[in-house]
Amino acid sequence: MLGLATGRIVVTSRIVVLGGGFGGMYAARALKRRLGSAAEIELVNAENYFVFQPLLPEVGAGSITPAHAVSPLRFLLRDVFVRKATVDSVDFERRLVTVFQGVQRRPTEIGYDHLVIALGQAADLSKMPGLEEHALTMRTLEDARRLRAHVIGQLEHAQITRLPEVKRGALTFCVVGGGFSGIETAGEMKDLIDRSLKFYPDIDPSEVRMIVVEFADRILGEMSRGLADYATRTLSERGIEVKLGTGVASATGTQLVTTTGEVIDTRTIVATIGNAPSPVVRRMGLPSERGRISVDRTLAVKGRRDVWALGDCALIALKDAPQGPRDYAPPTAQFAVREAEQLAENIASTIMGGTPQPFDYRSKGALASLGARKGVAQVFGLELKGFPAWLLWRFYYLAFLPGLTTRIFVLLNWFMDGISPRSVVQLHTRSVPPTRYVRYRAGDVIYEAGNRSDGFYTVVTGAVEMTRTDPETGLPQIRTIGPGGHFGERLILGATRRHTSVRAAEDTKVLVMDREEFLKLADSFQAFRDYFAPYMARHGMEWPPLGETEGQAAPTPVPVEKG
Amino acid sequence: MLGLATGRIVVTSRIVVLGGGFGGMYAARALKRRLGSAAEIELVNAENYFVFQPLLPEVGAGSITPAHAVSPLRFLLRDVFVRKATVDSVDFERRLVTVFQGVQRRPTEIGYDHLVIALGQAADLSKMPGLEEHALTMRTLEDARRLRAHVIGQLEHAQITRLPEVKRGALTFCVVGGGFSGIETAGEMKDLIDRSLKFYPDIDPSEVRMIVVEFADRILGEMSRGLADYATRTLSERGIEVKLGTGVASATGTQLVTTTGEVIDTRTIVATIGNAPSPVVRRMGLPSERGRISVDRTLAVKGRRDVWALGDCALIALKDAPQGPRDYAPPTAQFAVREAEQLAENIASTIMGGTPQPFDYRSKGALASLGARKGVAQVFGLELKGFPAWLLWRFYYLAFLPGLTTRIFVLLNWFMDGISPRSVVQLHTRSVPPTRYVRYRAGDVIYEAGNRSDGFYTVVTGAVEMTRTDPETGLPQIRTIGPGGHFGERLILGATRRHTSVRAAEDTKVLVMDREEFLKLADSFQAFRDYFAPYMARHGMEWPPLGETEGQAAPTPVPVEKG
Repeated sequence: MLGLATGRIVVTSRIVVLGGGFGGMYAARALKRRLGSAAEIELVNAENYFVFQPLLPEVGAGSITPAHAVSPLRFLLRDVFVRKATVDSVDFERRLVTVFQGVQRRPTEIGYDHLVIALGQAADLSKMPGLEEHALTMRTLEDARRLRAHVIGQLEHAQITRLPEVKRGALTFCVVGGGFSGIETAGEMKDLIDRSLKFYPDIDPSEVRMIVVEFADRILGEMSRGLADYATRTLSERGIEVKLGTGVASATGTQLVTTTGEVIDTRTIVATIGNAPSPVVRRMGLPSERGRISVDRTLAVKGRRDVWALGDCALIALKDAPQGPRDYAPPTAQFAVREAEQLAENIASTIMGGTPQPFDYRSKGALASLGARKGVAQVFGLELKGFPAWLLWRFYYLAFLPGLTTRIFVLLNWFMDGISPRSVVQLHTRSVPPTRYVRYRAGDVIYEAGNRSDGFYTVVTGAVEMTRTDPETGLPQIRTIGPGGHFGERLILGATRRHTSVRAAEDTKVLVMDREEFLKLADSFQAFRDYFAPYMARHGMEWPPLGETEGQAAPTPVPVEKG
Repeated sequence: MLGLATGRIVVTSRIVVLGGGFGGMYAARALKRRLGSAAEIELVNAENYFVFQPLLPEVGAGSITPAHAVSPLRFLLRDVFVRKATVDSVDFERRLVTVFQGVQRRPTEIGYDHLVIALGQAADLSKMPGLEEHALTMRTLEDARRLRAHVIGQLEHAQITRLPEVKRGALTFCVVGGGFSGIETAGEMKDLIDRSLKFYPDIDPSEVRMIVVEFADRILGEMSRGLADYATRTLSERGIEVKLGTGVASATGTQLVTTTGEVIDTRTIVATIGNAPSPVVRRMGLPSERGRISVDRTLAVKGRRDVWALGDCALIALKDAPQGPRDYAPPTAQFAVREAEQLAENIASTIMGGTPQPFDYRSKGALASLGARKGVAQVFGLELKGFPAWLLWRFYYLAFLPGLTTRIFVLLNWFMDGISPRSVVQLHTRSVPPTRYVRYRAGDVIYEAGNRSDGFYTVVTGAVEMTRTDPETGLPQIRTIGPGGHFGERLILGATRRHTSVRAAEDTKVLVMDREEFLKLADSFQAFRDYFAPYMARHGMEWPPLGETEGQAAPTPVPVEKG
């Protein structure tokens, strides 16, 4: 684009960076540093903050408060135009990015001369039935907050329930994946639980189970055997079971079934596996390999001179003729930051008419925290274990943190966490959407007579068996409901308790709609009302005028559990 | 109940406290202190933490992190059995409380000898059309977190939008109610905005409007005229407009209409008015006056010797023959704590066979922060203004905070807030439910051709006008949709952009269902699929097999706004 500056014509190029993670944020910084006013730089990110991924497990464990593990992008990128928006699509011919910002429904187009794609990767858990519906993930700050709230929720529930099977499930925590994220999450979660138990007198430490499930025959694949074995031993000393050579066969809200056939009662599954390209990157239709954008060694997208990619979303060869996976840049912060430097240099020299250089970097090592002030480290060929490794881990990341304020806050968090009890405040409790898919294994109870009428169910796949006691004969009546069928609609009659019991007749997937959601539709959507009108008539009821459904009634006496 | 202790029979009574606010938490504490092992004390609360209400505006403004403004009930009530559960109903004859705990659908019954009701009050905004659908509230910790995220979201949006009317609405903030909560919320919100603007270079301070709407002819009704006038002046010096004698006529997602006929473009309405009994208290059917439980002066519920009530949910006379409102205990923390002491003493003496005494207490004063280190205070007849009052406010509440750890954290928060910039990290962005009611005023645009197809709409009341351009003739075709009708269903055809424009033909209430929610139903609910099948057929499409709807398609080229 042309801009007029101090009397003479200067060419200002517009560089748009998509994504505000390690790759994108550091690229935007480096570009500004190199090009100054010679370029307009804009960064587009769905959140207005930069997440320091390595600290997520500590946020999940509550040793760092969420807001302190992140920095506002506007703090870190003073002279860059930061746009909080979601990327919809890119028109590479017209050099236009289409985004949606905030609640605004009108699309916004952003022009560019150079486009930098740093959109990272998304989770794809669809390969293992039930994992997508029932597993927590550890990719975003929200994920970490949700995990902490969920874990404390399990302790709260285990403390007061009188149902042994519920208590067992609540106190069994499973982590899928034995990489850095999985191991650190398990270690930190165990810390949180161990330090919190003193506030839950009715939970015996021996009742808590923490399990890491790893498909490979070892954990921490990026590290040496020796360190991996040490880590495994340390974890088991801390009461964390590591199941090697074990994958996930299927999952429900109450169970995890392993590929070795074991059935684990658990209400907590954290999945740290399953990388996939983010949907928007897939829609771009750029050349890709193994789910990542193909770039040449200068980080330019193959076949394009004005589109670049780096970080987890790009497949970056470290040699001209890469053989195995080790010849490609791993998806780590350490590499993303170095890639950002090279990319900025290459874009700058392209603009100035120079020649882009290939990205070349060798890992300086790896660090992992095991929780409880133990860790493993492999740096410049040296190997460290235990407390020293953990200390190195903390201070390496502290130094790595962008922004002085953030550093001070993180240090302060660590200090206070060292001298005060871990808070068991359970914030942010709503972790499931009001309309959601739920899986059941054959035989699972979906609900029982007397339970709270808390939702409306439709069968997607499989079949359920509904049992009620005939009021006249007193005999049980059984009805089977298959795909497309529904149950639980009695709540539109104002019922607050179930009069029937429903169990999965086979492995079944249902769509559950919370009571309030369902009643809103029944309240307002005519087709819905028409569909249920006959059912209501059979029960001697009819719809109130549109927009006035109450859906409330006095609870009916029911068999209950003693508190 | 009977319990055996050291050889002799001792009577242990079970006391169940419902609610963990100022009234409930302090009552449980005082009961334990007085009765020790002579009583089993249980506290039931929906959250596992105690909220220090007076600090909520500061949480909303980000000067205190949410987790630090609250204390886990388990920290504060070491020898009390704390149950995180929601109260469903009470059977006063059988002395049983029915609760639901966690995700458990089975009801749990809790027996009691004495029941203490301290469930506070709920918000009822239904009297003003649109307020319930579009106003934020400031009662819970979640409310405060949501407000902060919302305010920062408005700054983010105002910084990048190129639509003047959107920017104006995003930068206009309205608070309804000029009591303590309203005034402190407005003052703190203004602080947050003023301190954050340096990160939003495209927002001019003069573009920010903060408005307090109060129906009475003055604010802070609990304080002297002089202090109220000083507060009003101070607020207006800080750029906060106080509109007295002004109520809310109606509200939408983009506008607030006052009783004086003024129409204010705003996307932020914080309602601090509209007290109502909580639904569960209403269901209990206890004697009540003015929406509060009637108790005698000993805090026993009228007509019962084993049920007690205190705090905001109870109407407590301060004299035997109360005349005006001033003869009843105000709903403040100061009073709730004193009520808790008297209540504990009365239950103890009832158990020990003594005589309960009437509650008698006179306010020691009132304090309000105006933000920006200014406040007003009225203590022991003395009046303070400005900085001294603000300082007194902070230290009074710091001393008042239960739990040393919390005190230290709050102090630390204040200190760090004093020396570091206010973080503009926008956490917790989802503030609206995926299925929700939305109000429009006659003439409002609901969506325009080219907009994102982000939801399905049904008309509850009113009517909308849908306009499309006939592909053949090029002429506009207009269709009116009334109650029970729906629009926006094109998204089931895979559309990602609107092809029509819809505006409210009159004041209209619609039910909006987010795209994902709607597609889940279309994916799984046969009745839904059948209903839309003809519509799809008309467009030469049909449903994929149950459970496999994709609902995605390439975006179609559309007129867009320049970024």
